[in-house]
Amino acid sequence: MNLQDALKKFYEFHSKVSAYGHAMSLIYFDGATVAPAGTAANRSHALTVLSEQMYTMSTDKEIVDLLTYLDKNSDKLNERDARAVYLSYKNIKEMRHIPMEEYVAFEQLLVEADDVWHRAKAASDFAMFCPVLEKIFETTARFARYCAPDMDPYDYCLNKYEDGLDRATCDAFFAKLKETLLPLIRRIRAKAPISVECLKGQFDDQQQQAFALTLMRTMGIDLDHCGLGTTEHPFTTSIGSHHDVRITTNYDPTDLSYSMYSVIHEGGHALYDMHSDDAYAYTPLDGGVSMGIHESQSRFYENLLGRSEPFIRYIFPEMQHRFPEPLSHYTAEDVYRAVNRVTPSLIRTEADEVTYCLHVMIRYELERRVIGGELAVRDLPAEWARLYKEYLGVDVPDDKHGVLQDSHWSGGSIGYFPSYALGSAYGAQLLARMKEEVDVDACLSRGDFAPINAWNREHIWRHGSLKAPNVLLREVLGCDFDPTYYTDYLTEKYTKLYDL
Amino acid sequence: MNLQDALKKFYEFHSKVSAYGHAMSLIYFDGATVAPAGTAANRSHALTVLSEQMYTMSTDKEIVDLLTYLDKNSDKLNERDARAVYLSYKNIKEMRHIPMEEYVAFEQLLVEADDVWHRAKAASDFAMFCPVLEKIFETTARFARYCAPDMDPYDYCLNKYEDGLDRATCDAFFAKLKETLLPLIRRIRAKAPISVECLKGQFDDQQQQAFALTLMRTMGIDLDHCGLGTTEHPFTTSIGSHHDVRITTNYDPTDLSYSMYSVIHEGGHALYDMHSDDAYAYTPLDGGVSMGIHESQSRFYENLLGRSEPFIRYIFPEMQHRFPEPLSHYTAEDVYRAVNRVTPSLIRTEADEVTYCLHVMIRYELERRVIGGELAVRDLPAEWARLYKEYLGVDVPDDKHGVLQDSHWSGGSIGYFPSYALGSAYGAQLLARMKEEVDVDACLSRGDFAPINAWNREHIWRHGSLKAPNVLLREVLGCDFDPTYYTDYLTEKYTKLYDL
Repeated sequence: MNLQDALKKFYEFHSKVSAYGHAMSLIYFDGATVAPAGTAANRSHALTVLSEQMYTMSTDKEIVDLLTYLDKNSDKLNERDARAVYLSYKNIKEMRHIPMEEYVAFEQLLVEADDVWHRAKAASDFAMFCPVLEKIFETTARFARYCAPDMDPYDYCLNKYEDGLDRATCDAFFAKLKETLLPLIRRIRAKAPISVECLKGQFDDQQQQAFALTLMRTMGIDLDHCGLGTTEHPFTTSIGSHHDVRITTNYDPTDLSYSMYSVIHEGGHALYDMHSDDAYAYTPLDGGVSMGIHESQSRFYENLLGRSEPFIRYIFPEMQHRFPEPLSHYTAEDVYRAVNRVTPSLIRTEADEVTYCLHVMIRYELERRVIGGELAVRDLPAEWARLYKEYLGVDVPDDKHGVLQDSHWSGGSIGYFPSYALGSAYGAQLLARMKEEVDVDACLSRGDFAPINAWNREHIWRHGSLKAPNVLLREVLGCDFDPTYYTDYLTEKYTKLYDL
Repeated sequence: MNLQDALKKFYEFHSKVSAYGHAMSLIYFDGATVAPAGTAANRSHALTVLSEQMYTMSTDKEIVDLLTYLDKNSDKLNERDARAVYLSYKNIKEMRHIPMEEYVAFEQLLVEADDVWHRAKAASDFAMFCPVLEKIFETTARFARYCAPDMDPYDYCLNKYEDGLDRATCDAFFAKLKETLLPLIRRIRAKAPISVECLKGQFDDQQQQAFALTLMRTMGIDLDHCGLGTTEHPFTTSIGSHHDVRITTNYDPTDLSYSMYSVIHEGGHALYDMHSDDAYAYTPLDGGVSMGIHESQSRFYENLLGRSEPFIRYIFPEMQHRFPEPLSHYTAEDVYRAVNRVTPSLIRTEADEVTYCLHVMIRYELERRVIGGELAVRDLPAEWARLYKEYLGVDVPDDKHGVLQDSHWSGGSIGYFPSYALGSAYGAQLLARMKEEVDVDACLSRGDFAPINAWNREHIWRHGSLKAPNVLLREVLGCDFDPTYYTDYLTEKYTKLYDL
């Protein structure tokens, strides 16, 4: 085989793969947004066939031979081709370790799990979800053993979302957070709570949606390539390539901030995905490289920018204009304080910046112990309640507000949670680095995201998946990742806000 | 090969095919409804790959051998299996006559054509669309020659939408319509026009959408399996099987009747598709058998039921409640008269029952002559204008209100139009037959569609594509199709309405 011909075949194969990806992402997006309520089984049929086809295509001898050949010759490839081959080969090697029946059965299990989880959550009944969740954890551990028999199964899970991450790194990271955040939270709790009345009222979906679109435009999101849908749980997905990205939100009729910050968060994911180098479309290099880097962008926009004082001062007149009731009775300062109120609470997605990582840490500890065989799935609710009491001081009243709140486990995403906390911490260090070159506060105070986006595009977005997350971070930061930036940022911001 | 094994393989193959169909229908539906404006090229990429895969899969030697074997042994198969094999073999035999590059190029041409047509229509500039339309007509004629070298190419086109239809049948049918309708229209034009003021005003999209959903429920459409979207041009599509059907509409902010009747029309298509026998899902028997029978259902609900006096009397209080302005100033009789006003006009989709078939006839005559090589595509606008003047007495002011109005030609649907007129006429004869068993007027006057739907389900819908259209019609009617039912229905209704 000739190297150039092999590369040509390789990219043709990925062009095909991305069309299947397009179809499957769209079927998922449709199911979560506009599909009629009774059509899950029909979607499951199509997804089963398409994932079988994808599996068959990807594990075909000709493709495996092609990738083996390219991998052996990777020293002769340029950076882009070598990385694309590496990512593809890694993925397919793993797929080949999983027998097709088991691979497809897991896809089907996840479709079923989504349905069972929704019903169990509505009924606040973990027992209903428990048997399915047991299968998901069991399969995840089994697949980890198939794919990386020499690796700890939970380390393998972590690596799926953040290449190079392991339990030791997470442990050290969370220990550092705990050490700073627990005392900080204690000091905040001693202070009078901040009022959030300025965000409460009766808000029309359509009005909130119009505001969401304004936020997206303000963030510099190209609405010709990014859509906005409504779903129970907000998410971001690319449809086939970075040329078509969709974000979703949900409108709380009584709280303005829920949709506002979910849109800014998902908008951060969208900006990252949408700005891969155009040449990467339909290749393994398209889209963000890891969940940690992804969350570093989404939580960057949501918190470091979106909850900053200059941004709130900029956006406040727009909010007041759109929602005169209640905002005509309040000031930008009231909104700034309200969107940054710290309250240990039950729900991760509604948590403030300070307590957020503790929610994540609880999930990390629990899933790690379940995969490690140290904790039974049926004991999750009790352990969940114990840890929420220990770290956050709150009593979990029921499964709906506890172990059933997130969709990650029902979606098979085990090992994903730590990336939220890591990403938050990456973001703080990235902001410090960005501020050496961009006057971020000045940009925010005039609602001008262009210089901020240009910096992110140059240093992060355009690379897509070209650089491994640790390589990318090192290159942009010029030094190792250091969570102190994050703990310092939180300490400084909240000491000032709460006058500690 | 063993017959039972072969059948099993055959249905497995179609189960796969339907998953590709699911993906492709959904990509189309997404593009027409919620996809961001700049994502057409990305969709085109996925559709090209998936249609190539579909082509490769369908023309694979193993599948062709399987179908050839089953076709040879069709006398040993039961009615269902034999018909499924017939439909599949017919389709694949034709596909094999078209070289893959040409097949895929045509799919790509249609994606381009959709875009060009939208822009040309907006600019009212046929010259912009002409080169693409020439290619579409040329390819259609070429494919017809590939697939059926012994058949007249336009007859082949007609057969794609209505098995067994030919030019001679159409000519006789349209001659009969012309003979009755032209004098009827002349007599109506001599009378004072009916006022449509009761349907005019300022109508909110959301209010109209809520009314549309009420109409769907009233018609007995199961909203758990049928969604409603918003598109420029209303249409109906099944997503993968009859378990998931979507209809779309468009809300005219000044005219209540536009969305109302497009929803009832598409709702008729949806009811037909949704009620295929459950055993037919993911087989060639799933969904309606032909466009003629489909239009017999959609135009049945839209006109024979939806524009009837008892239905208007039933729905009027609901309309008045939802749209007190202007309807509090009018009566059910005013609405009945308004939704049945006859006015020769420019736009087919807005035409009344009496002039509608003349719009269709013009398109039939034109496309037949283009395919037959008797008319150049570039001469279509002039011929269009001449025929509108001759049959309808109206002057065509521009291409937007003339030759560019419909999406059929840009979508490659040549030979489709006659099914609208035929379907309308089938419907009138079906209504007469239904009335022997169901008191249709009494049902409509109490908004009870259940007995009407039950009759259609038993005689038409549940069969899916099991029976050829002419066989199905013969069985349900108990006699040959006779357009006199339709012309009598129109003559009687409009003689009374206009007091002729």
